[in-house]
Amino acid sequence: MLIVMRQDATQEQIDAVIGIIGEKGCQARPIPGGERVSIGVLYNKGPLDPANFQALAGVKEAIAVTRPYKLVSREVKPHDTIVRVGNTEIGGSRFSIIGGPCAVESESLAMATAEHVKKAGADIFRGGAFKPRTSPYAFQGLGEEGLKILAKVRETFDMPVVTEVLDLAHFDMVEQYADIVQIGTRNMQNFSLLRRAGESKKSVMLKRGMSATVDEWLMAAEYIMSEGNENIILCERGVRTFVRHSRNTLDFSAIPVVRRESHLPVIIDPSHASGYRDQVLPLARAAAAVGSHGLMVEVHDMPDFAQCDGGQSLYPDQFALMCRQARAICDIFASS
Amino acid sequence: MLIVMRQDATQEQIDAVIGIIGEKGCQARPIPGGERVSIGVLYNKGPLDPANFQALAGVKEAIAVTRPYKLVSREVKPHDTIVRVGNTEIGGSRFSIIGGPCAVESESLAMATAEHVKKAGADIFRGGAFKPRTSPYAFQGLGEEGLKILAKVRETFDMPVVTEVLDLAHFDMVEQYADIVQIGTRNMQNFSLLRRAGESKKSVMLKRGMSATVDEWLMAAEYIMSEGNENIILCERGVRTFVRHSRNTLDFSAIPVVRRESHLPVIIDPSHASGYRDQVLPLARAAAAVGSHGLMVEVHDMPDFAQCDGGQSLYPDQFALMCRQARAICDIFASS
Amino acid sequence: MLIVMRQDATQEQIDAVIGIIGEKGCQARPIPGGERVSIGVLYNKGPLDPANFQALAGVKEAIAVTRPYKLVSREVKPHDTIVRVGNTEIGGSRFSIIGGPCAVESESLAMATAEHVKKAGADIFRGGAFKPRTSPYAFQGLGEEGLKILAKVRETFDMPVVTEVLDLAHFDMVEQYADIVQIGTRNMQNFSLLRRAGESKKSVMLKRGMSATVDEWLMAAEYIMSEGNENIILCERGVRTFVRHSRNTLDFSAIPVVRRESHLPVIIDPSHASGYRDQVLPLARAAAAVGSHGLMVEVHDMPDFAQCDGGQSLYPDQFALMCRQARAICDIFASS
Amino acid sequence: MLIVMRQDATQEQIDAVIGIIGEKGCQARPIPGGERVSIGVLYNKGPLDPANFQALAGVKEAIAVTRPYKLVSREVKPHDTIVRVGNTEIGGSRFSIIGGPCAVESESLAMATAEHVKKAGADIFRGGAFKPRTSPYAFQGLGEEGLKILAKVRETFDMPVVTEVLDLAHFDMVEQYADIVQIGTRNMQNFSLLRRAGESKKSVMLKRGMSATVDEWLMAAEYIMSEGNENIILCERGVRTFVRHSRNTLDFSAIPVVRRESHLPVIIDPSHASGYRDQVLPLARAAAAVGSHGLMVEVHDMPDFAQCDGGQSLYPDQFALMCRQARAICDIFASS
Repeated sequence: MLIVMRQDATQEQIDAVIGIIGEKGCQARPIPGGERVSIGVLYNKGPLDPANFQALAGVKEAIAVTRPYKLVSREVKPHDTIVRVGNTEIGGSRFSIIGGPCAVESESLAMATAEHVKKAGADIFRGGAFKPRTSPYAFQGLGEEGLKILAKVRETFDMPVVTEVLDLAHFDMVEQYADIVQIGTRNMQNFSLLRRAGESKKSVMLKRGMSATVDEWLMAAEYIMSEGNENIILCERGVRTFVRHSRNTLDFSAIPVVRRESHLPVIIDPSHASGYRDQVLPLARAAAAVGSHGLMVEVHDMPDFAQCDGGQSLYPDQFALMCRQARAICDIFASS
Repeated sequence: MLIVMRQDATQEQIDAVIGIIGEKGCQARPIPGGERVSIGVLYNKGPLDPANFQALAGVKEAIAVTRPYKLVSREVKPHDTIVRVGNTEIGGSRFSIIGGPCAVESESLAMATAEHVKKAGADIFRGGAFKPRTSPYAFQGLGEEGLKILAKVRETFDMPVVTEVLDLAHFDMVEQYADIVQIGTRNMQNFSLLRRAGESKKSVMLKRGMSATVDEWLMAAEYIMSEGNENIILCERGVRTFVRHSRNTLDFSAIPVVRRESHLPVIIDPSHASGYRDQVLPLARAAAAVGSHGLMVEVHDMPDFAQCDGGQSLYPDQFALMCRQARAICDIFASS
Repeated sequence: MLIVMRQDATQEQIDAVIGIIGEKGCQARPIPGGERVSIGVLYNKGPLDPANFQALAGVKEAIAVTRPYKLVSREVKPHDTIVRVGNTEIGGSRFSIIGGPCAVESESLAMATAEHVKKAGADIFRGGAFKPRTSPYAFQGLGEEGLKILAKVRETFDMPVVTEVLDLAHFDMVEQYADIVQIGTRNMQNFSLLRRAGESKKSVMLKRGMSATVDEWLMAAEYIMSEGNENIILCERGVRTFVRHSRNTLDFSAIPVVRRESHLPVIIDPSHASGYRDQVLPLARAAAAVGSHGLMVEVHDMPDFAQCDGGQSLYPDQFALMCRQARAICDIFASS
Repeated sequence: MLIVMRQDATQEQIDAVIGIIGEKGCQARPIPGGERVSIGVLYNKGPLDPANFQALAGVKEAIAVTRPYKLVSREVKPHDTIVRVGNTEIGGSRFSIIGGPCAVESESLAMATAEHVKKAGADIFRGGAFKPRTSPYAFQGLGEEGLKILAKVRETFDMPVVTEVLDLAHFDMVEQYADIVQIGTRNMQNFSLLRRAGESKKSVMLKRGMSATVDEWLMAAEYIMSEGNENIILCERGVRTFVRHSRNTLDFSAIPVVRRESHLPVIIDPSHASGYRDQVLPLARAAAAVGSHGLMVEVHDMPDFAQCDGGQSLYPDQFALMCRQARAICDIFASS
């Protein structure tokens, strides 16, 4: 942290700040400048809250300097983490594609869609058994029946499956069936759930909160990792902005930033980000081009009759086109 | 919902849209205009997703018209809900003040602060026993020990207490001690927690999510109310914007909007909204002036030594001044 | 500026950064810490761009420390600026109310509305002669005819008038008629217009840009002041956020921040911020309570027939009520 | 527009709304539904303001239905506009690359950079002669001297040039030298400047405002087009959000939306959007993949010594790599 004193700060005020820094077990390093004194705070263990210092007499501003995360940081582990999932892996130079319906509505829908997903060359199947819905009156998913259908998809098509867990009460159940347990955007800071995921032997997909900074997102991953689970896949799914022509705004800059700051793989979900089918293909191509480690996309055997998110689900042939284009884009990097 | 067709939409496309509306059990009402046809969707039960219709051939736009909430709506219940809490109530023409430290750090801190809170004329005591922290390495609260201290505060000072519940696993415990169970901003769409709160006999304070619209916030309240609990207090605590001089931006417009749309009481938390002590008093006065049902403010016996949120906690004398000014502002309404 | 080096930065990289700092005429002060080296940049004249340094080899982050503005800063001039306008003044402990229609539509409308404004006890009359409209096909204002009507209002009711200037081409004309020349939100960074305003003998009202930080807003004021005009009134009018129930979101925190950082008076415009009449009265009261120096509010003799912004214009009796309530709220401060 | 009445609206209130619609020269079409009446507003010429209707007694909500723009709309002109610029064109299936320094600092810098730009296969040279700077004390550009250097670049390298105009006063001068006159993000709603650009014979590049919706951006283009100039290139350059790891957030969804709504070409500027060099290449690839009509990127012969925006300017070899990768990505579309 750097504490910038006011121009008119007195020596007493400066000394008081230095004293409080010492009481917190840190070392104060005053830096006299042309117009004012600044004070560096060194050797702090754990995060300090700038607001605490900003409120002291004579202080103009307190600025956080070091990043609060440790285990997820590339400074601690320089090499890319590669997450092994069933017969495939996510991370490094590999580009992974995950496809499937928003919700597992029935076995026949899941199997029909999975066949398309497999044939298009995707790596992993997705489908929701527990659905977070804004309205208590909307379809909430099939629960364990849905999970069993997912297990059948895995067995039949030899594809790992990812599905969302909504709460602690169902974690054991979801963990039993899923290859990757997904923590959704609304739960990114559900700290009990994060800790439980940290104790799991399964991989975890951590979606970015709708209004989370990259720092907060990486701190949520730190919760998981601090409990011992290193198999974490980050998923950017758009942030909330003033823009109204898409449900959210995909933050593509987050990809190079996360790749620089952390060793964890990071993929993109253009379906939930946009909310509209005709934006998904262009955004998916951009997701490949920006250097993410993969895509998670909603596809449905018959989107017009889907029980949820039909309007953003691709038709099977659109999904196949997307897979071809995304992989072709990735090949360009390899050769340039 | 209103479906606006493209200018070049064919009669076949219009008929197809009308057919799909019928299949969903609604009634289609075509409205031919000068340049294009629109189609009203009537008699729908439950929410329809505009994206489903916007993706159909020939459709330019689908626009949601009716609000998705029912029980929390003032159209369903025209009169203000007044929530009885211990020896006081929240709602109607009453202005309630809730004060206390961010976290219950110790019995002595809680008791000392409660004495100030009581003397300043506040109605309810607040204090966190379970703290949601961005970092897994930060102080996480005293847990049940903190809840017991809160019970002692209630007994000693004859003030109801409000405290946050973080997850399902601790709901029974928190419910046992608290007069008002708080659901925090990060949990606003933790639907299992909302349903559990709906089964509780205790009042619930529902904070607005950091990037939630008023519609989403009221739908979260609908989750609680649909399980039978009508004792809900809404709490605006700022939304995430590009602004950097405060932690969040308080959305004062939400107060007249919520009061028009819903019968539930709505209060304001300027402490978490701003993050800086010197903004709390001005924002608290504004909260009284804008017509909210009350305030929740952090105050600490010795903020410079607080274990969390010290920088945004008021000194006891600032809190007393705030109570005086806020109540004086409310009196102006009564007489004008 | 503070430059934070990466943990693995080499001594060569550190030296290279120090060299570049020196070439820019500043002094480098290395600060070795536990995990990494930081480098303070001292004695810089004018703003440095952190991105320039962040892009250098071995640099983790470059953080701006000092504020870029000078003349508008309270550190340079500690006492409140009070702007004299006709027979009144804005700033200090005074609370000023400005009222009038969005546009000067006709002499009769202006005179009728001005009579209400005067009777309600407002200080200054507002009315647009040149209107910035999103659509080229919408009513654009009466131009010089509107300015002449404003001059007649001033003469008849002995009230100063404020009106917006849209471009350099009309500055001389507007300046001739207005007591306060308003620079609108869309022009906050129209730097030629700002410089021209800086040469004017008239007071300037500078509205905050819809997505401007307080720093950018104060820098825009710095443009005006650097040309010699110190009679600047800042006006907060809401910022663009994801919120949809109001046109913009009023940033009340900006008021205490501006008052701490700058000596210039700052008022609030709740009409353009909200866009809806039923939000204006509550927001206006809050504007008085938060400690602003005044209000600018749209009022219209017959809002239902207004040519622009009718939906956000108060009825005359609402405006009178607002004046009473806002002044009563201000009186509370004086006595507490 | 659709006007949704309250459930408890009386017949008198409904009739009054219908009456006002008639007075505005439109036709009212009541739509009785299960719970409430809605009223369609048909045959309106020009935009109506929903707030005007929302403020009427008995009205719950007024919702704009039709888009306010005409000439720029694809409904009016279905085929892509292709803008001819010197020896090249922008639009249709062509992918254009524009490169050059932020500011024309000197003839030698411009010529050296232009040589790199040309060799990398870019189509158009960019460089600022008049710079919009947040601070009045920062380098403001070389003015006409810079324009003359641009003309020399065009002559020497046979490349059209684009440069920004800041105000009406310099439009004639800039127009004389430039092939494309750029209107910057801060001037997107500088309506006098837009009208003047509409009278120009030169092409216009219209950058999106930092917090403008796509509708507002297209309306700004409508201002230009309504004066007769159809040679407009739109440029997405990021919008302001809560995100802090990039200067702005590129709104990639805007590209498919603009391409669907309008016939005008739309390109992307990843340099100003991100503000950091290491984000530019990934974002530029994504810009090609998402289906934009081109790129505008800052490149500098010696970025570490640039007078502005050095931290976001590519090195010449990075720019060459970007051109190769972007064009290779575009080729994938052509063949799939």
